[in-house]
Order: sequence, then structure tokens, then C-alpha cells
Amino acid sequence: MPQPFDRVFNFSAGPGVLPVQVLEEIRDEVLNYRGAGMGVMEMSHRSAAFEQILFEAKADLRSLMGISDEYEILFLQGGASSQFTMVPMSFLGSGTAQYIVTGAWGQKAIEAGRFEGEVEVLWDGKADEYRSIPNEIGENELASYVHITTNETIQGVRFGHDISVTAPLICDMSSDILSRPVDVSKYDLIYAGAQKNMGPAGATVVIIKKELLDGVSRELPPMMDYRVHVKNDSMYNTPPCWAIYVCGKVYRRLLSLGGLMAVHENNIAKSGVVYSAIDESNGFYRGHAVTEARSLMNVTFTLAEDGLTKSFVSEADALGMKDLKGHRSVGGCRASIYNAFPNDGCIALADFMREFAHKNG
Amino acid sequence: MPQPFDRVFNFSAGPGVLPVQVLEEIRDEVLNYRGAGMGVMEMSHRSAAFEQILFEAKADLRSLMGISDEYEILFLQGGASSQFTMVPMSFLGSGTAQYIVTGAWGQKAIEAGRFEGEVEVLWDGKADEYRSIPNEIGENELASYVHITTNETIQGVRFGHDISVTAPLICDMSSDILSRPVDVSKYDLIYAGAQKNMGPAGATVVIIKKELLDGVSRELPPMMDYRVHVKNDSMYNTPPCWAIYVCGKVYRRLLSLGGLMAVHENNIAKSGVVYSAIDESNGFYRGHAVTEARSLMNVTFTLAEDGLTKSFVSEADALGMKDLKGHRSVGGCRASIYNAFPNDGCIALADFMREFAHKNG
Repeated sequence: MPQPFDRVFNFSAGPGVLPVQVLEEIRDEVLNYRGAGMGVMEMSHRSAAFEQILFEAKADLRSLMGISDEYEILFLQGGASSQFTMVPMSFLGSGTAQYIVTGAWGQKAIEAGRFEGEVEVLWDGKADEYRSIPNEIGENELASYVHITTNETIQGVRFGHDISVTAPLICDMSSDILSRPVDVSKYDLIYAGAQKNMGPAGATVVIIKKELLDGVSRELPPMMDYRVHVKNDSMYNTPPCWAIYVCGKVYRRLLSLGGLMAVHENNIAKSGVVYSAIDESNGFYRGHAVTEARSLMNVTFTLAEDGLTKSFVSEADALGMKDLKGHRSVGGCRASIYNAFPNDGCIALADFMREFAHKNG
Repeated sequence: MPQPFDRVFNFSAGPGVLPVQVLEEIRDEVLNYRGAGMGVMEMSHRSAAFEQILFEAKADLRSLMGISDEYEILFLQGGASSQFTMVPMSFLGSGTAQYIVTGAWGQKAIEAGRFEGEVEVLWDGKADEYRSIPNEIGENELASYVHITTNETIQGVRFGHDISVTAPLICDMSSDILSRPVDVSKYDLIYAGAQKNMGPAGATVVIIKKELLDGVSRELPPMMDYRVHVKNDSMYNTPPCWAIYVCGKVYRRLLSLGGLMAVHENNIAKSGVVYSAIDESNGFYRGHAVTEARSLMNVTFTLAEDGLTKSFVSEADALGMKDLKGHRSVGGCRASIYNAFPNDGCIALADFMREFAHKNG
């Protein structure tokens, strides 16, 4: 059963489940943050208390991901969708950017890029319905940058390793940031909306190599200009204070759990429980992704007999397993099991899947 | 004394104080929103529960402000600072926009506008240090739009009435939205960051006349395009769900208090208490704004003997009256007393001001 007893197993693809311990801390501080006599939502972003929250969140993220001083960390607004435009505005220039399209988010990124200038597809998984991830990346010395999406929430595929390219590497890590250790030094810019593994929707983390900014010469509207946000330490305008505060608590918790290697091992175990139920079902369930590309965050599968999908989802729902319906563009089912999703929930789902297959197989 | 006993009087200019009753409701729902088994931060923005939250927030805002069906209501991200750019991107075209600059925020708006095309100053209060508001607005038939800032937080001046212009009227209402009834039909676009009178930083309300959008022909990046957000009902990307949820609770509360006329009367009374302490001090305190332009939200004043400002602020702080220091660009003191600021706090401040003047006068 979930803990506390009145919580469900929330398989939402995002915004997604947050750690109960973090929510309990937040609850206790809503009206009064550590004796300040006010909550974090009510606090001037220029106050010492909030500056401390921002400073600690950045320091803890730096420590968690092993981000060197060569990188700046920003907390912006507008989600990955705003980054889809800010990235080419700053870094496309008069050159060509190359996009690796492994699913729906990669498609959105390249569409927004196309609006700003020359972009080309370096690899596209469309032919096999975005079930896989490229093994080989072509030549790209001349590209303004290469863009990848490390995890695709809709198709449930992911890069399980840090790729190397010769052009600057820019990465949408929205749905698997903090799910495993990454070698940040291989990336020139990482961005991620908060609402999967970090906190509530409304904050976007950008990790940006200082060197990359030196190459920007174009004048930009201030809110679209990374240099402005770097210069003002994410305080050019009022930042999304509350979302940053929650992210900070999540970072602190992940550190207390032993950091990203421990988190990763747990994610392998959790997703393994669900993938096993698929693989041992004799074809009753079919994973969407090829085995090597399987996401640890979004387990996507269909039922061989598609007519059973609806009752699968509604029977699970009645048992407190919520939001298992797949995205309309892929169909079937999707179990999103981000960092904060409890291990018990994966076991409960796998048990239910076996039972359901037995009953309907 | 403040209620609950451990809360201070928070005079922050923003993010600012929220109603205790709203915070208590939020606290009780952090882990479980009305039996959903999850909190609002963890909820899919496509869920029925969140769609209801968004729908009700919009309906309640429409009701509170008397917004007709000729207007769309959006909840975006990026604060007023993003609107400073989005407005000219959509509506400046090849024409000229005219800005009425009544303080620091008007200056920021016109600077961002200048980046996008032709803008001109229709009125600027710089000569008298932004102490006043224009009585007469010049001719502007040919302007792409006229832009005003209804309340300036730093200088503490405000338009106390809805002006009429012939060009489309676009208005930054960030710091006094919902502080008084406005005739929305006089405006073509109203925008406001949430963090003064509505909720936490991270949501921006845009109220936009549908007709105004018909005139936009330019192609824009999707996140900068009001049409995209209208078409997707503020759900083109993941919206700032939590901030919208809190705003919705604040709208509901203002309705329960009797709506904006009641709120306005209370704001007149509250600010009157503080302005009286200034006016009756025989020049010990000096209001920054001329009387007719005095803000009901941000009471700005200096001490005739400037050397006393520091001890004024620190003695008040010790008594639980926080954040009374004026903005560095104006100096002196500032008491921000947004809708949710308790009446008792204004009385406590006025009492303290009289005592301090008596002791040091």
C-alpha cells in the first residue's frame, strides 16, 4: 500500500510524483519558513532567506551532478518549450544545427529551431516509430550545435550513455535529469523542465558552459538572452521562487539518498520490475521500445489484444494506480516511474499486470 | 499582533504576503488535493482535477473583474518582463508604439519595446522624479498601441482611474490588479505577474481582447505567440500549475470578501492609515508621490532627516514589521500593503511611525 495510506500510485508522465518527505517539509513551512514569519511564496526574491534557498539549490545541484566551475546554473521559466527557441536564437547563428530526433520532444525542438534558421535532421527514428536510439552519430564538425533529447516520455526511449560529438552538444534532459550520473563535461548546454524529477512545473534548469556564451554576438530581447540571466544570477526578473525552493528540497533529498549512482541503481531495479512483467507475459504485453533503448522513466507498452487496454487502465485506476493510459499518439499504456515514484508502486503494477494477463490471457 | 501569532507583518514589494486562509487551505492539500491521492504539484496538467482548477480560476477572475466574452484569459510564464517583449513582437508591427512612463517598470517596458521596433515616449515623469501621473494624454490615433503601467512599485504612484485613448491600450497591471474595480472594456490587453495580488511568482495573467489578435500577421516562435496560447487554452506547454492553483484560491477568497469594490474600499482605508501618519508628522516623514498620484499598494516616503532611515527600518524590523526599506533607486522607505496585507499591520506601522517621530523629532 502507498505511504501515507491516502496517497495513490501516481504514474503521471509529468507533472509527476514528488517525494512524500519533501511534501511533508513543505507543508510544515507553508505559513512560516524556518521562523521567517512568512512562507516562501510570500518572500521577496531579494531577501537573505530566498537568496540562501537559491544559492543552496545551485550548490546542491552542482554537487549532485558533478558540475564544474566551467558551467553556470540558471533557473528560468517557460519550460523546455521556451528553450526550444532560446537555444537556436543564441547558438544557431548563420550556420546549421543538427538535431537527433528520437521522439515527440525532439520533433518539437527541431520545429522551433527551423523557425530561427537552418536546421537539419542528423538522425530520425520515425521509420521504426521511435522505438530506438542511434548507435552511430555522423560527422558534425561544421554544425552550430547538435541537439539531442536524452529521454522521450511519449515513446519511452532514452540514451543510456553520454554520447560524444565534435560540435557543441545541447541536450533536453527534462525527463531524465538526475535519474543517473551523467558526464556533464560532454555537454555544452543541458536544459530541463522541473516537473519530472525535480519539482513543480514552472522552473527550468539550464546548465551552460561559459565558453559557449562567448560565441554569442547577436543582440537578443533580455528575457531570451542567457547572458542577461547569467549576469543577474537568475534574478534579472522575479524568478519562480517556489519552484526553485521545491527543487532545492529534492536535490537535498537525493544527496541524502547517496547521490545519483544510488538513484540510478534504484531506477534500474524499479523499471526492471515492470519490464519483467512485460517480458514474461508471453506476448500479452509488448514493450514499445527495443530493449537497448528502454527508458527507465517511462515504460511504454501495448496489449496484444488492444480491446483490453481500456479495462486494464480502469481496473488499475480502481486499485489506486493512476494515469496509466498511454499518450494518444502512441496508444497503449505508459507507466511513468520517475525518481520519486515508490518502489512499491512498481511491484504493485507488475503484480496487477500478471494477474490481469492470467485472467484475460 | 499578527494572526497566527508567529507571522510577521510582511511589507515586501513582491513577492508579497498571501492571505493566511489561502495558505492554510494549501497546507492541508499539499499531499492530497481533495481526495485525489496526490498534491497539485504532482498532478498531470491534462488531468480532470487540474483542468477544473484552471477552468475555475479563469471563471472566477472573469467574474471578479467583469471580463466579457470579447476577452481571452491566459496564464503564461515569464512575468511582466516577458510581456515587455511579447507585446511589441505581436502588436508593434511597422508602426510606432507610444509609452507613458510613470516609473521604473514603464522604463523597462519601453526599453524592451525599443529593441523590437519604433517606440516613443508619450509622457515621462522623470523631470519630477516620477512623483505624478499625467492628467492629459496627447493624440495617438496613429500609434500601434499605447502602453501604461497602472501602478509603479518603486516610486509608489498609480493611475487611480481607467484612462481612454484612441489607439489600443495595453497595460501592465502587475502591482495593482484586483486592488480596485477596473473597466476592462477600456483596455485591449492587460498583463500582470502574479506575485503581488494574486499568488506566487511564476504565473502571468494576460487578458486580451480577441479583436486585437486578429490584427497580428507576423509569424512568431510558438511560446512568444499569444495566438498559440489562446488556441491551446494556456496548455500549449505545461503551465505553471501550482501558481495557477494558488491564484485560483485567491480569486475565490476575494469573491467571498464581496468583490473588488469591497477590496478597494479596504485598500483606501489601509493606505489612508499610513498616509495619515505621514501627513500628520509635520514634515518628519515626506511622501514621495504627489497626493493625487499616491499608490494604494506601495506607500513610499522619506524621513526629513535621512540619517534616521536606517534606525527606522531596523527598529520596525525588530517589532516584526519586515522589509520597509525603500528601493535603492529612490531611497527612504516603502510600505507595500497589497490586498492580503492585514489592516492591523497598517495600524501597527502608523503607530510606530508616530512613536518614532515623537522620539526622534
